Amino acid sequence: MPLVPYVDEDTADGVVKEVFDDIKASRNLARVPPFWRAIAHQPEYLRHEWQKLKAIMSTGVIDRKVKEMIAVAVSATNNCDYCVRSHTDALRALGATDAELVELLSVVDFFNGSNAIASGLKVEYEPAVPATPPDV
Amino acid sequence: MPLVPYVDEDTADGVVKEVFDDIKASRNLARVPPFWRAIAHQPEYLRHEWQKLKAIMSTGVIDRKVKEMIAVAVSATNNCDYCVRSHTDALRALGATDAELVELLSVVDFFNGSNAIASGLKVEYEPAVPATPPDV
Amino acid sequence: MPLVPYVDEDTADGVVKEVFDDIKASRNLARVPPFWRAIAHQPEYLRHEWQKLKAIMSTGVIDRKVKEMIAVAVSATNNCDYCVRSHTDALRALGATDAELVELLSVVDFFNGSNAIASGLKVEYEPAVPATPPDV
Amino acid sequence: MPLVPYVDEDTADGVVKEVFDDIKASRNLARVPPFWRAIAHQPEYLRHEWQKLKAIMSTGVIDRKVKEMIAVAVSATNNCDYCVRSHTDALRALGATDAELVELLSVVDFFNGSNAIASGLKVEYEPAVPATPPDV
Amino acid sequence: MPLVPYVDEDTADGVVKEVFDDIKASRNLARVPPFWRAIAHQPEYLRHEWQKLKAIMSTGVIDRKVKEMIAVAVSATNNCDYCVRSHTDALRALGATDAELVELLSVVDFFNGSNAIASGLKVEYEPAVPATPPDV
Amino acid sequence: MPLVPYVDEDTADGVVKEVFDDIKASRNLARVPPFWRAIAHQPEYLRHEWQKLKAIMSTGVIDRKVKEMIAVAVSATNNCDYCVRSHTDALRALGATDAELVELLSVVDFFNGSNAIASGLKVEYEPAVPATPPDV
Repeated sequence: MPLVPYVDEDTADGVVKEVFDDIKASRNLARVPPFWRAIAHQPEYLRHEWQKLKAIMSTGVIDRKVKEMIAVAVSATNNCDYCVRSHTDALRALGATDAELVELLSVVDFFNGSNAIASGLKVEYEPAVPATPPDV
Repeated sequence: MPLVPYVDEDTADGVVKEVFDDIKASRNLARVPPFWRAIAHQPEYLRHEWQKLKAIMSTGVIDRKVKEMIAVAVSATNNCDYCVRSHTDALRALGATDAELVELLSVVDFFNGSNAIASGLKVEYEPAVPATPPDV
Repeated sequence: MPLVPYVDEDTADGVVKEVFDDIKASRNLARVPPFWRAIAHQPEYLRHEWQKLKAIMSTGVIDRKVKEMIAVAVSATNNCDYCVRSHTDALRALGATDAELVELLSVVDFFNGSNAIASGLKVEYEPAVPATPPDV
Repeated sequence: MPLVPYVDEDTADGVVKEVFDDIKASRNLARVPPFWRAIAHQPEYLRHEWQKLKAIMSTGVIDRKVKEMIAVAVSATNNCDYCVRSHTDALRALGATDAELVELLSVVDFFNGSNAIASGLKVEYEPAVPATPPDV
Repeated sequence: MPLVPYVDEDTADGVVKEVFDDIKASRNLARVPPFWRAIAHQPEYLRHEWQKLKAIMSTGVIDRKVKEMIAVAVSATNNCDYCVRSHTDALRALGATDAELVELLSVVDFFNGSNAIASGLKVEYEPAVPATPPDV
Repeated sequence: MPLVPYVDEDTADGVVKEVFDDIKASRNLARVPPFWRAIAHQPEYLRHEWQKLKAIMSTGVIDRKVKEMIAVAVSATNNCDYCVRSHTDALRALGATDAELVELLSVVDFFNGSNAIASGLKVEYEPAVPATPPDV
């Protein structure tokens, strides 16, 4: 059970209704996902969180599927159930297979492990020294 | 200062020399990076860590640059100095610009934040309900 | 299911009974919460954990409600289900509304996010430079 | 050394200049702090991050000093050097003493510890049972 | 529900069958645990993960029970349900009692707490200064 | 630089002096380590933190060296510089070699990695099914 009730999307008005309508329109959704309804108790926070998400997922050169992979990588590292499920579903909708999801998480596994040993041994970074200079 | 001395790459022998040679050959490096020299006090661990890294970075369908991005995303979340520096350098070698690095970290920012609120409010995941069915 | 059985509060004796009685008296409780019953398998640890909690929650200048907010902030960051529920209930008993809980978690969201980008980009802190000196 | 150069505040224009000016005006600062200059390589992200921060720090019922305490609590939990320094300075500017900072961190200490044991033993939350009903 | 189906151990072949057989033989198991079946969608990753685990749990001077304790300590810190349960069961099979598990987690509690305050106050390490030199 | 000045051990009195004297006597130290001097701005917190540490490190059946290993495992996972250095030094004083420290951290590496994949794939724990019943 969530720790706050979800704001009712059918009776929402003002800023909340505006954001809810934009979420449904931008994502082609019939219903507002529970995450947004939970935070709608603070309308200004809801508005800025949604606008920030729209901006970071759509601007720039990194493609959407890669951004969803990063979302899963961070969420698995933090062990966020909601977020792992939500962005895994998004990846599947973009064509990710079981093998691809495991491949993604194998990278997450490796670096969570190696982060702990690099930090634990206080290894100091040195830029790599190439054996042969890159071609000109 | 690292908490263990780095194993000397010029006098290494046996499994350690084998792995060091493979690291330098596979990555076109003149010198073995300090991470591998630090863990070489346990030769079998060194061997398996290296082989696991080679396997996960090269197999499958996710491209190398995306894997380096996931490495940075996990390392920034865990605040691992060595790992952030090392994989940021790898991304730059693959062509990433300042703007691309900030774009990558903006996604890492958003999900570290939203993970905390989704977990903190115990929001329960529900699969998205599309407004209109996908085209057939 | 918890990984150890809860110590039976009705048959407890010695240090455990003393601490259990103090918990119930200090907090006006009919029953000892499961957290304390779980750790009671180590009576000295139980005693010190409880005394530390009493000391930090009651001494000093930061008021109790703020301390409960900090408890929720830390527990949401670490994704501890028991702790988030327990200290959210404590905040509600102190008058916190749904909007106030979301407001609290919006701050937790922001800083979990900005922590990751500040660490990920290795931004170096510089003390702020005021535009105009404070009034004398 | 930061992993991206800071955007020059004297030559910034467009969205970046607008946000930089607003940061300096809102906070009474002569210079833009390095955090904002680092992320300015993505102007839209800069804009939304700043607007979200302004919104969450100023709206609602929780006072500013408490929000700075929560910032320190989260940043200490995540071990973010920049963020701990920056928000500790902000607390000092709001009057916090050494004793108050240690008091704040004693609460952060306790809950980081108890989070691990509650999660580690899989203790299940039960709402508190009051010994005597609250006065009517 | 897991986010990928478990690979069927009865129809597995090639590398996957080899690893599954080795897991069952090495651990005297009738069935392959779900962790390994979940990651088997990437056979090379499965192989290296298993070989790394075998190597680190069996080589060196730290005994197996201590390694299982470290597994529980890390998993409680990261709040990994599967891992806490699995390695707690392993510790019980090696003779750990309820009191020993709570003792283990009391250490995990203390250091998760003190890590946060040491990092939060930016305390700088200095090697201990013995009152009297050790006997020669 | 630490965020609070260290309390001067030569002029300390009352509870602080008592605890400082006990720390030096119990650990055979000439000087009080900076961690304790930093938190001494809150004398009651200092007292309870120290008494809790003494209790958990000395009671029970798990030996001191194993407890120091758990301290390092947790501190490496949380990336606490002070704590990793302090407890690595403690392990060395108890005889740990470079190879033993790397062996310890190889276990920390493995479980930080596997925690992320078990949580990321939402694998559900099932107790192991032994191939053959244990001997009677």
